[in-house]
Amino acid sequence: MANLEETIARIRPLDTAAMAAARARQNELTKPQGSLGRLEELAILVAGSQGRLRPTLRDKAVIVMAGDHGVCEEGVSAYPSEVTPQMVYNFLRGGAAINALAGQAGARVRVVDVGVAAELRPQPGLWQRKVAPGTANIARGPAMTRQQAVSALEVGIEAVEAERARGLDMVATGDMGIGNTTPASAIAAAVTGLPAALVTGRGTGLDDEGLRRKVAVVEQILRVNRPDPTDGLDVLAKVGGFEIAGLAGVILGAAANNVVVLVDGFISGAAALVAALLCPVVKQRLIQAHLSAEAGHRAMMRWLGAEPLLDLGMRLGEGTGAALGMMVVESAVRAMNEMATFAEAGVAEAKEAASAAAN
Amino acid sequence: MANLEETIARIRPLDTAAMAAARARQNELTKPQGSLGRLEELAILVAGSQGRLRPTLRDKAVIVMAGDHGVCEEGVSAYPSEVTPQMVYNFLRGGAAINALAGQAGARVRVVDVGVAAELRPQPGLWQRKVAPGTANIARGPAMTRQQAVSALEVGIEAVEAERARGLDMVATGDMGIGNTTPASAIAAAVTGLPAALVTGRGTGLDDEGLRRKVAVVEQILRVNRPDPTDGLDVLAKVGGFEIAGLAGVILGAAANNVVVLVDGFISGAAALVAALLCPVVKQRLIQAHLSAEAGHRAMMRWLGAEPLLDLGMRLGEGTGAALGMMVVESAVRAMNEMATFAEAGVAEAKEAASAAAN
Repeated sequence: MANLEETIARIRPLDTAAMAAARARQNELTKPQGSLGRLEELAILVAGSQGRLRPTLRDKAVIVMAGDHGVCEEGVSAYPSEVTPQMVYNFLRGGAAINALAGQAGARVRVVDVGVAAELRPQPGLWQRKVAPGTANIARGPAMTRQQAVSALEVGIEAVEAERARGLDMVATGDMGIGNTTPASAIAAAVTGLPAALVTGRGTGLDDEGLRRKVAVVEQILRVNRPDPTDGLDVLAKVGGFEIAGLAGVILGAAANNVVVLVDGFISGAAALVAALLCPVVKQRLIQAHLSAEAGHRAMMRWLGAEPLLDLGMRLGEGTGAALGMMVVESAVRAMNEMATFAEAGVAEAKEAASAAAN
Repeated sequence: MANLEETIARIRPLDTAAMAAARARQNELTKPQGSLGRLEELAILVAGSQGRLRPTLRDKAVIVMAGDHGVCEEGVSAYPSEVTPQMVYNFLRGGAAINALAGQAGARVRVVDVGVAAELRPQPGLWQRKVAPGTANIARGPAMTRQQAVSALEVGIEAVEAERARGLDMVATGDMGIGNTTPASAIAAAVTGLPAALVTGRGTGLDDEGLRRKVAVVEQILRVNRPDPTDGLDVLAKVGGFEIAGLAGVILGAAANNVVVLVDGFISGAAALVAALLCPVVKQRLIQAHLSAEAGHRAMMRWLGAEPLLDLGMRLGEGTGAALGMMVVESAVRAMNEMATFAEAGVAEAKEAASAAAN
């Protein structure tokens, strides 16, 4: 059994010695200094995360946390809650976007039922760790108890540690949960202090009237629950969701075990806010994979001090943006590991060029 | 032997029927409509490019065109021309950034000597089609004759057609040529009409004084040569380079043969401008892979009406940005080809959800 406090206590800052060695190596490789841009920074980050100059990213997984939301009663989503279990089965049959993108990234997909409001049939690839069958309606009161929030966080830690035992080097966070942009917006508003209207978006496709109603619901959620923005557990228990808690656990568990973590879009971003409140040093280790088209994600990124790698207008979740980000990170590490140095390749460096030009 | 005019005559607009079918399919897949953002557009573009609903991207190559530049006499680069052949050997030994990134993308690297100012040792993977040993100094007169420009374009067409005969589905453009940001800036200024200072950057790493000199050299190039901005061959012959001509040929040859083409950064962007002048319809088929950190690339993209896929602060060339872009395009096509429809997966659609919510 994972333990939240013990896991948080194990999270260390990035290894600055490994990062300095990686930075020095970047400057010896056969390219103008800095010319690989963010790929250079990414490889250095991974070196610091794994604590070695030549990091490895052989084993990759997307962990998709699934949960339901009582707040769907308020009409905040274009889809009914029944779609959550339907999509879980779709993931397990390999028919969803995340299956295609994880396949391209060479990552396996693991699905965890941490709070789906339906009994799922046991089957390979599905890890059944339901804390409760969906959250309570957060427009009327807290989503879950504080103890349930801890349990869901620990499900996430256990999920990533089970994969780590199989050799996991890099994990992508994924989510499924009809209605989950509403708690994610509430978390964004609570943590950043911005008004609900600035961090609430159309989710899977609300029209203008639906969006107005959703903003009013998020305002009500904050009024009813009054989450403490300095207390990650309080925010999570009052206005969160089980899959968001599970993903915050994946993030903390990955950081504690030196697993490189790619954070997906808006829902995973809410999980990252919670994780960063519970353990601020974790922010150093997060790689924000893509900028979600969902309103409010940019505010989350600003609060985290992060600049997402990709901006492709995506707003699907499931870990799809994080799977794409994995390919960029792997490319970055591969370049650092595989490129020849100027000396090895017998290529003249810029300094020599400058003196040659002066002659 | 390839023929430039015959190749241009074969280039067709995108297949709008295949695109309409692909768009309809996107809307049946198990995701909210439009939620995969640019991935949806990319898959539709590839369907239109290959003329079929289920496109294939099995066979991939990066074609790196190498050439030298007489204008290096003017001190426009931080590196000496000797680095061009040194880097060609580095590509062939697998030690360069493009080898690592192409490996990650599952693409082979083909190197073409279309104008290197040194005799290269014959070896596997190197295609020797030198038109001339480097361009003349474009600060004093034209880079090459109009016939040499045609020959270099035809080398590019032949290169992509040789790969097509092996099954090529998708090609990335790559370049190597010390000094080549200077002709690329001259092409950008000539074609877009912008002043040299706005489209000239630091290349591999000039300091402020070096940049001022380079801007003055680009101004001189334009004054001396007066390229006709409506005549792609005139621009290319007067202020271009052999690798830029070769890449314009790759772009035209790919378009004529329904090969998906990923355009790399600043040098490849200059080739795209030339290709688009020679055959405007080719613009439809170009996928601009990344926004180069080199000043002037954004102006090229504006002129082409393109929005690059990635923005990672890269400015290396070699096809590195295009190799990353290939992974995004392949992910996009994979999602369209492999995802289940709502009907196949038994997932409720948003319409039903809306009526369910109303009940």
